[in-house]
Amino acid sequence: MSGFRHVAMFGWVEGTTTLQQQEIADRLRELPGVIPEIQAYSVGVNAGVNPGNYDFVVVADFADREAYLAYRDHPAHRAVVDQYIDPLVARRAAIQYDLE
Amino acid sequence: MSGFRHVAMFGWVEGTTTLQQQEIADRLRELPGVIPEIQAYSVGVNAGVNPGNYDFVVVADFADREAYLAYRDHPAHRAVVDQYIDPLVARRAAIQYDLE
Repeated sequence: MSGFRHVAMFGWVEGTTTLQQQEIADRLRELPGVIPEIQAYSVGVNAGVNPGNYDFVVVADFADREAYLAYRDHPAHRAVVDQYIDPLVARRAAIQYDLE
Repeated sequence: MSGFRHVAMFGWVEGTTTLQQQEIADRLRELPGVIPEIQAYSVGVNAGVNPGNYDFVVVADFADREAYLAYRDHPAHRAVVDQYIDPLVARRAAIQYDLE
């Protein structure tokens, strides 16, 4: 499989509710219907297996780097980040890489 | 798609070489041949698109949580972590989640 993958993990601020987290997941899951560059999109909540984990993750696949950048900078994506994610983020980890 | 996904990102200590990183990738990529519980295994190096990114990522898919735990605790996996990864890790971010 070739392509370009974006992975972002988030740890939420203390007091973040499961309802808030669910709303973020719901908003993100609307993006593949709005941003055609998204080829695959997986949103997940920490299963609680290991201590120290992050709370939330997005794994998104694109044809190439340019398609990822279209997603990154798309107004619909920015709106979710600005309105729902950023106010609750305590820590974030991200990477993008070429799929082989 | 159902299943259980493990994602781990690493940032290496200063001075880590691309050769060392490549050796880690090579060792990890041997694991699907040794640990039958691994259904899909993707190893990637930061593409350098965004500042602040982690350096390296593993995305691994399993049938369920138990299959992931078999991988996590498998001697072949532990050997790579202990001998190649741990000595170079400056920061690590991880999550496991149910695939929908």
